[in-house]
Amino acid sequence: MKILVLGGDGYLGWPTAMYLAEKGHDVSVVDNFHRRLWDTEIGASSLLPIAPLQDRVSVWASLGKKPIGVHVGDITEWDFIESVFNKTQPEAIVHYGEHRSAPFSMLSRRNAVVTQVNNVVGTLNVLYAMKDLAPESHLVKLGTMGEYGTPNINIEEGFLEVTHKGRSDVLPFPKQPASFYHLSKVHDSHNIMFVCRAWGLRSTDLNQGVVYGVHTDETALDPRLATRFDYDDVWGTVLNRYCVQAAIDHPLTVYGKGGQTRGFLDINDTLKCVELAIEHPASMGEYRVFNQFTEQFTVLELAQKVAEAARKVGWDPIIENITNPRIEMEEHYYHAEHTRLLDLGLEPRYLSETLIDGLLGTVGGLADQVNRRLLYPGHSWKEGLLETQPVQ
Amino acid sequence: MKILVLGGDGYLGWPTAMYLAEKGHDVSVVDNFHRRLWDTEIGASSLLPIAPLQDRVSVWASLGKKPIGVHVGDITEWDFIESVFNKTQPEAIVHYGEHRSAPFSMLSRRNAVVTQVNNVVGTLNVLYAMKDLAPESHLVKLGTMGEYGTPNINIEEGFLEVTHKGRSDVLPFPKQPASFYHLSKVHDSHNIMFVCRAWGLRSTDLNQGVVYGVHTDETALDPRLATRFDYDDVWGTVLNRYCVQAAIDHPLTVYGKGGQTRGFLDINDTLKCVELAIEHPASMGEYRVFNQFTEQFTVLELAQKVAEAARKVGWDPIIENITNPRIEMEEHYYHAEHTRLLDLGLEPRYLSETLIDGLLGTVGGLADQVNRRLLYPGHSWKEGLLETQPVQ
Repeated sequence: MKILVLGGDGYLGWPTAMYLAEKGHDVSVVDNFHRRLWDTEIGASSLLPIAPLQDRVSVWASLGKKPIGVHVGDITEWDFIESVFNKTQPEAIVHYGEHRSAPFSMLSRRNAVVTQVNNVVGTLNVLYAMKDLAPESHLVKLGTMGEYGTPNINIEEGFLEVTHKGRSDVLPFPKQPASFYHLSKVHDSHNIMFVCRAWGLRSTDLNQGVVYGVHTDETALDPRLATRFDYDDVWGTVLNRYCVQAAIDHPLTVYGKGGQTRGFLDINDTLKCVELAIEHPASMGEYRVFNQFTEQFTVLELAQKVAEAARKVGWDPIIENITNPRIEMEEHYYHAEHTRLLDLGLEPRYLSETLIDGLLGTVGGLADQVNRRLLYPGHSWKEGLLETQPVQ
Repeated sequence: MKILVLGGDGYLGWPTAMYLAEKGHDVSVVDNFHRRLWDTEIGASSLLPIAPLQDRVSVWASLGKKPIGVHVGDITEWDFIESVFNKTQPEAIVHYGEHRSAPFSMLSRRNAVVTQVNNVVGTLNVLYAMKDLAPESHLVKLGTMGEYGTPNINIEEGFLEVTHKGRSDVLPFPKQPASFYHLSKVHDSHNIMFVCRAWGLRSTDLNQGVVYGVHTDETALDPRLATRFDYDDVWGTVLNRYCVQAAIDHPLTVYGKGGQTRGFLDINDTLKCVELAIEHPASMGEYRVFNQFTEQFTVLELAQKVAEAARKVGWDPIIENITNPRIEMEEHYYHAEHTRLLDLGLEPRYLSETLIDGLLGTVGGLADQVNRRLLYPGHSWKEGLLETQPVQ
C-alpha cells in the first residue's frame, strides 16, 4: 500500500516508517524538522544520538530494505502538501506531523499560538488534500488520550451513548483537555469528524496514551537507525525521564502527589496499532476513534517500578514529590476503555521488568551525556518561569 | 464600566457599542474592517448604507452622547491587542471580533484556514491579554447555537449531566458543529473553558441563535448610525434574505425541505443579553454558557411568516424549495434550553408581524439597490462552485 508518514523524522514517525516498509508497504516520510529545531530552542537533545533523516533512509536502503521516500517541507504550506499528494498518491496517511508537547505549548503566548496554528492548519491542509487529490485514502491520525481529561465517568472510545430527559443519542465524548497542545488535538478531532460527515472522507483517530521505550526490531539493525530518547521536562515522557534520573543517581521527580493516572503503551505496540488501523480501514465517511494504550498507571506507580528495577542493578534512587508545574488533578477516578484495537488483534507488550531493565541499560551507558538542567520543570503552567536548577 | 467591544464596526458590534455607551459605560471599539473587505471579495454590500466607523463615532458624539473610543487594528497581532489593553484597562470585553459566516468558511481551503486561524488566534491573544493585563476582567464571548449541531436530545446550556455505567459527572455538552466557521467557535469554547480553569479567568459564552432586525433605539437616531443589513447568500441571515426577496418579487428560497430548526432572536434582545451578562458577571474562574435566543422556528415557517406579512402589503411571494448548499439535516429533533438569560431578567421581543412589517418597509424603499445575483447560493459545501444566477 502507498503510505505517507507525516512527521516521519520523529520519535514514533521514524520507527513507524521502517516498520511499515519492512511489512512491504511503499512508504514516504514527510518532515520539516521542527522537532529538531525545538531542541535548540530549549537547549535539549535526544539522549540517543539520531542521524540526519537523509542518512537514516540511506542506511536503511543499504541494508537491502525497501527504500523509504523523503519529502522535506511544511504541511502548513498548501503548495507543499499538494505536491506531495500528487507525487505519492497515498492510500493511507499516518499523521504524526504535529507539535506534540503540552509543556512546550504552555511556555508562552507564542508557543500556544504556534502549537494550535501548526496543528490545526497542517491537518486542515491534509484534509483538503485528501478531498481534492485522494478522496478514498484513509487518514490514520494520532490523537491523544489527553483529549478526554479526567472525567468522573468511564472514558469510552470517541463516542458516548447519552440518555437525557427521555431521549437518547450517541454523541462525541465530551472533551476536557488540559493544555494548549491537548486542545489543538481536540480542535483537530472536531475538524476531522466534520469532513468525514460532510465530504465522505474516512479517518481513524488514535487517541494514544503515553509511549515508552525506544527499541524496535528495525532500530536495532544499526545505531544510525535509532529513534529519539527524550528525557527533558518539555519533550520527555515520564518513564523515560525516571530511567535517566535513576541512572545518574538523581531523585525520580514525581509531579505533585503522583496520583495522576494515565494510559501507557510500549513503542512496539504503537507500531502494531498503526498497522492494524491501516489493515482494517475505516469505511468511507466513517470517523472512528480507538483508545490506543494497553495499561493504566499512576505516575507514582511508575516511579516505584523504575526504583525497584534500578535497585536490582545496584542503583538506589529516591522518589521526590516536587511541586506540580501542570494544571491537573493529582487524585481522580480514571477508567478508559480500550478494546477496539484488541478486537483487531493487538497482543499487548505489557510494561515489564525486562523492558525497564533494557531502558536502564541503554541509559546507563549514556549517563555522562545527561544534562541535569533538563530534569526539573523550568516553567509552571500557572505561574510562569520557575527558578531553574543550576547546571551540575 | 470600562468596556471593549471587539468587532465594534460590525452588524451587532456597532449597535452594542452605542447601546452600552447610552447606558453610561465607557466604551471603546476595536475593529480591523475585515467585514467590509469581505464584502468586496464576494461582490456584496449592506443594503442599508453604512457610514465609516470614524463618522459613526463622530455623529454619535455630535448628538451629545458619551463618546466611543476607536482602536483600528487586528487582534491576531499581539502588539496591537496588548497596546489596546494597556490603554483601556477593560473591565469587560465583548468579543464579536471574529469571522462569522459559515458559507464564507466553506468557500475554499483558504477560507477555512483564514476563518479558523483568525478566530482561534484572535481569541488566544485576548485570553493572554486578560491574563497578563486585566486578570479580573470579564470576557463576554459571542459563540453560536450552531456549536451544538442537531443532537437527538435536548440541548442544555453548555454542560450536560451524564450518568454512565453507574457513575455521574457534569461534562461539557458534546458539540457537533457543521461548518469550519462553527468549528472555529467550538475551538474557542474549549480554549476559553481551559483558561478559566487553568488561570482563574472568567467568561460568559453566549451561544447565540440567528439574529434578525436592524433597528435599535440608537440606530434610529441618525441614518449615519445605521447598522449593516446583509441579504446575500454568504453573510445574510435567513429572515433578512426572505424580506428582501419578498420586496423584489423574487421567490423566497428555502434550502431543501426547510425543516431545519434553529433558535432566533431580535437584534434588540442581543443588546439586552450582552448587557445582562456584563451586569451579572461570571465568578472568577468560572466559564459559563448562556443559550442566547428566544424562539425556535424552522426555516420554512419563517418563509411562511414573511410571505403572509408580504401579502398583507400587496406583494405575493412564492416559496421555492431549492437544493440545499449546506450539509445539514432537513428534518430533525430540536429542543434547546434557554432559561439562564430569562432568569437574569431578559424580556424577549418575540418575532411579530410588526417586526416583519418594519423590515419589509425598510427593504421596500431600497428594492432598486438589491443585487439579484446574491439571492441564490453560489457554492455547495460538498460539490463546490454552483452555476451562478445571471445578473438580472
